[in-house]
Amino acid sequence: MNLLLFAPEELLPDGTAVISGRRLKQLREVIKAAPGKLCKAGVLNGAVGRAELLEIDEREAKLRFEAQSAPPEPLDVTLLCALPRPLTFAKVLHGAVTCGVKRLHFFHSAKVEKSYWQSSKLAPETIREELLLALEQCADTVMPELFFHRRFRSFVEDEVPKLTPEGALKFFGAPAASEPVPVGAARRAPVVLAVGPEGGFNDFEERLWRDSGFAAVTLGPRILRSEFAVNALLSVLGVAEAR
Amino acid sequence: MNLLLFAPEELLPDGTAVISGRRLKQLREVIKAAPGKLCKAGVLNGAVGRAELLEIDEREAKLRFEAQSAPPEPLDVTLLCALPRPLTFAKVLHGAVTCGVKRLHFFHSAKVEKSYWQSSKLAPETIREELLLALEQCADTVMPELFFHRRFRSFVEDEVPKLTPEGALKFFGAPAASEPVPVGAARRAPVVLAVGPEGGFNDFEERLWRDSGFAAVTLGPRILRSEFAVNALLSVLGVAEAR
Repeated sequence: MNLLLFAPEELLPDGTAVISGRRLKQLREVIKAAPGKLCKAGVLNGAVGRAELLEIDEREAKLRFEAQSAPPEPLDVTLLCALPRPLTFAKVLHGAVTCGVKRLHFFHSAKVEKSYWQSSKLAPETIREELLLALEQCADTVMPELFFHRRFRSFVEDEVPKLTPEGALKFFGAPAASEPVPVGAARRAPVVLAVGPEGGFNDFEERLWRDSGFAAVTLGPRILRSEFAVNALLSVLGVAEAR
Repeated sequence: MNLLLFAPEELLPDGTAVISGRRLKQLREVIKAAPGKLCKAGVLNGAVGRAELLEIDEREAKLRFEAQSAPPEPLDVTLLCALPRPLTFAKVLHGAVTCGVKRLHFFHSAKVEKSYWQSSKLAPETIREELLLALEQCADTVMPELFFHRRFRSFVEDEVPKLTPEGALKFFGAPAASEPVPVGAARRAPVVLAVGPEGGFNDFEERLWRDSGFAAVTLGPRILRSEFAVNALLSVLGVAEAR
């Protein structure tokens, strides 16, 4: 936990908040915080600042929050990702959110097993908990939006044009492509990035991405696990150039 | 498994090999391969090519291997990494090896808990299995070298100079640094990259890296989990520029 995240409704008019549960456990057992301790904090979908621990016992902790700055800039990438197997889903989600992605679309594709859609990892409350953990990890406050699409073709043909920002650069990851991922592209324009399932898109799917204006890009000949591939693509798209 | 890896001693003079265990299970249960099936294969520390499945039953599979090309170029980064907690160690290792790193040094530092050094994840046979899985994932054959160092100061002062290649660029990851990770640096010169533990290096340690000629570099203000931070740093250091 690199940032203690408050829900807006937890904050009283005097700036204090009382927390319990997972965050209390973290303060007591991992940070071993005592009254007077200052820690980085933020308000969900709001400012980043610091919180002073006022009181703590085994049931709850009281803190006073002081807003200081805006949350970090989001990464201007809309991520379209073939639904990974359940355990990988949580890793991909965490990796993408900690890179600053705010719009994630998971979709079905030929090599996605139908059973993945039944996973308890996709329950809204489970996803919300994963998202909060990721925001706390990367010291951000802005909750990302997630969408799920069960039909590949209508997603690409009907939905993707609607979710694509004006002037966006559009790429799909393809290990065998000849063009490298463009360094820092997401700092120059909005990017829409499509990532395939384990085993990749099939020929029909690749053709549909190309027909929809997406360019094939690669990180090189090595094939990475889904969570590392997504993390690497986002890192290269979002990297700042040396001055 | 994106590449079926043979040990050199498994290959008979006629190019055939008989396998069992984990690789057989993968062929039967995941790939569901039948005789005649061609799959990407390689020889440990040797060539990449393809293997034709000749015979398969519940006890073993017989294949014929044909060498075709050299393994993918290694990433010219020597990774120095504070020893992560045991479960994270396996992820960091996998992520780094699939990015093409061939020299990994894990070291102690102030925020590394002593208990991490007792983990069964550090047993040589466990590590070897992790390394083989990572090579199979990224379709490489060249076994990386791992080293462990229990004393931070003597590692940095005495060992690091010896393991640093002539003309190498030297960096350490520091989220609060002002210089971004240099894009594609490992394509222009050998790189030595030091990555801290969760919570980062302390002031003394940062000073020692600087005094040893290492420059502080950052991926940005977001703090990533160790395995994603390592993967992102390596991806940016190794990325090809668009032509």
